[in-house]
Amino acid sequence: MKTRLFTPGPVMVPEKVMLKMAEPIIHHRTPEYESLFADVNVKLKKFFMTEGEVFTLASSGTGAMEAAVVNILAKGDKAVAVRGGKFGERWYEICKAYGVETIAIDVEWGRAVTPEQIKKVLDGNPGVKAVFTTQSETSTGVLTDLKAIGEVIKKYDVALVTDAVSGLGAHELLPDKWGIDMVVSGSQKTIMLPPGLGFICVLKDTWSRIERSNLPKYYWDLKKYKKSIEKNQNPFTPPVTLLVGLNESLDIILAEGIENMWARQALVAKAMRAGIKALGLNLFPKDPSNVLTTISIPEGIDGGALVKTLKKNGIFPAGGQDQLKGKIIRIGHIGYLDEYDVFAALSGLEMSLKAIGYSFSSGESLKAAQQVMSE
Amino acid sequence: MKTRLFTPGPVMVPEKVMLKMAEPIIHHRTPEYESLFADVNVKLKKFFMTEGEVFTLASSGTGAMEAAVVNILAKGDKAVAVRGGKFGERWYEICKAYGVETIAIDVEWGRAVTPEQIKKVLDGNPGVKAVFTTQSETSTGVLTDLKAIGEVIKKYDVALVTDAVSGLGAHELLPDKWGIDMVVSGSQKTIMLPPGLGFICVLKDTWSRIERSNLPKYYWDLKKYKKSIEKNQNPFTPPVTLLVGLNESLDIILAEGIENMWARQALVAKAMRAGIKALGLNLFPKDPSNVLTTISIPEGIDGGALVKTLKKNGIFPAGGQDQLKGKIIRIGHIGYLDEYDVFAALSGLEMSLKAIGYSFSSGESLKAAQQVMSE
Repeated sequence: MKTRLFTPGPVMVPEKVMLKMAEPIIHHRTPEYESLFADVNVKLKKFFMTEGEVFTLASSGTGAMEAAVVNILAKGDKAVAVRGGKFGERWYEICKAYGVETIAIDVEWGRAVTPEQIKKVLDGNPGVKAVFTTQSETSTGVLTDLKAIGEVIKKYDVALVTDAVSGLGAHELLPDKWGIDMVVSGSQKTIMLPPGLGFICVLKDTWSRIERSNLPKYYWDLKKYKKSIEKNQNPFTPPVTLLVGLNESLDIILAEGIENMWARQALVAKAMRAGIKALGLNLFPKDPSNVLTTISIPEGIDGGALVKTLKKNGIFPAGGQDQLKGKIIRIGHIGYLDEYDVFAALSGLEMSLKAIGYSFSSGESLKAAQQVMSE
Repeated sequence: MKTRLFTPGPVMVPEKVMLKMAEPIIHHRTPEYESLFADVNVKLKKFFMTEGEVFTLASSGTGAMEAAVVNILAKGDKAVAVRGGKFGERWYEICKAYGVETIAIDVEWGRAVTPEQIKKVLDGNPGVKAVFTTQSETSTGVLTDLKAIGEVIKKYDVALVTDAVSGLGAHELLPDKWGIDMVVSGSQKTIMLPPGLGFICVLKDTWSRIERSNLPKYYWDLKKYKKSIEKNQNPFTPPVTLLVGLNESLDIILAEGIENMWARQALVAKAMRAGIKALGLNLFPKDPSNVLTTISIPEGIDGGALVKTLKKNGIFPAGGQDQLKGKIIRIGHIGYLDEYDVFAALSGLEMSLKAIGYSFSSGESLKAAQQVMSE
């Protein structure tokens, strides 16, 4: 049986991309690499839907988050971090690590922060310089309405930063139009690459903030990356093979088209949710993201056993983290997956639920998913 | 014609390793990955010749250098950075970026710092907490005698940190015995992997320094890595495919044996140096490293043209950087290269020198190299 990764990242990688990366390595201080990197950067801007710049870091997504914090803030600045899950907490922790006075907006896990909540905090805390948010919170499966939040923040002299590590490509996101100063992402999600690259998209107007930033940094110093990118180079040795793969992955994505990708991801998520509901199961998040479907484990069912059985059946989901351990199961549907993989996931889920004693009428989830697909 | 990378990194990667990395990706929160990572960590300790711990970061070598600085120092500490090339300068710049009072030991490019120089600075500057050095300075081809420096530093309450990004595996280095608190390295050198992994080896006794360190950090916080490695995990998503490749590369290295690898690298470097001298060319460094051979461009020869011609002949060297631009040529001989590749490099060099009008007797460098190999 094949192993199918239905985790919200790392995701499966197209064979074509893996084989391209297996070709003889090229050196990065060459016209060949510079031409590749120039192409990649044009494609990245299309993928991020920006006229700004997208910088590629040799790091995981967390590294790119840290880069956002240390480049957007100066010593003594106040910041706001939305904490509605594990990755929202990470923003708070990074800010605190740099001694930033950080106001947390604590949101119940499973809910999204509202624009009103952000407005209230900004009105009550003059001097806030940046608000850190999470587009799709991978730990809960919640989507944040960044367009609406952008509308609010435009009225203040405050930067809006979002962690779109898993969400980018699965949901509409328009940094320039919505006023998102920095969008952070990573390679191992909708970009369909192995982990190892972090991305940070910076709007043109955001550079004045970066210029005044004086938090200590060297490797994360975006001014270095800006200077290098103008010569189609990186300030430090880039992970060349991942960049070769990125070029391939972006070709696949752009051939599909970003809007089509959003629509496909929405369809897959809708079909998955319909299937889940048809089995009498409940979705955990009130505001579900299209990156993953988070299911509340029903009373009397052992969440750990369900994850284990699913894995034995070749369907590889993620369980709950921290306070949600054993209470939810997360089925990711980004990366090298398509509409038909929904049927694999739901079939595996049905067989696993049956095996551990949850009662329902077999095939119902598939019927419901087909219904959505055919609409 | 094949392109042969004779750069001091990124280096050529064994086909076997590339193909292993092209296999379907595995998820990192699995027993399968944890077993792989446990194996890798045992092998890394053998490669680093340490009873301490080796941490793997998703970063370039510079990221691992920054991790060393922010974990070994506390606010207000003084540090010493040896500046005898581009990478020595990097230590200084990173320390300064974090507001560390940093005393530079400026060494003429092409020379190694002496233990006496370090002793003098330490005697003259009480309160220094760490000395940052470069084992093999890639920009000049110079080797530093870390054993002798370790002997000096043992007499002070000072940490010794070295950048062994390119040198590790090409020269004897015994962190535990020589008292090197932190050894920094990267994947794209003697480890024969693509770039994307940074390594940092930490001695057991060094943890008391890390505990008192309070420079701001999150992604580079080694305490997080230590906590995770105990469960065979990483605090942040690791570049899974590179770790799969690392496991393969380390198998190749350990099958050869570290001491045998040092001996082979020494032989290759000796043969290369003999060949260069036989052509009437001069070595640039007074204390040459086995990682690369740095040749002074003779009077009347255009260094840029030589590099260009070599590349056209399929031999890919590196030129000089900064103050050495056009004055030297650097031929790396680490990575997936062996004794016979020396003959390719020297043949390409002879043909290129001939083409640009340098006069010598053809074949002499090959004869000299063969002589060394046969001894």
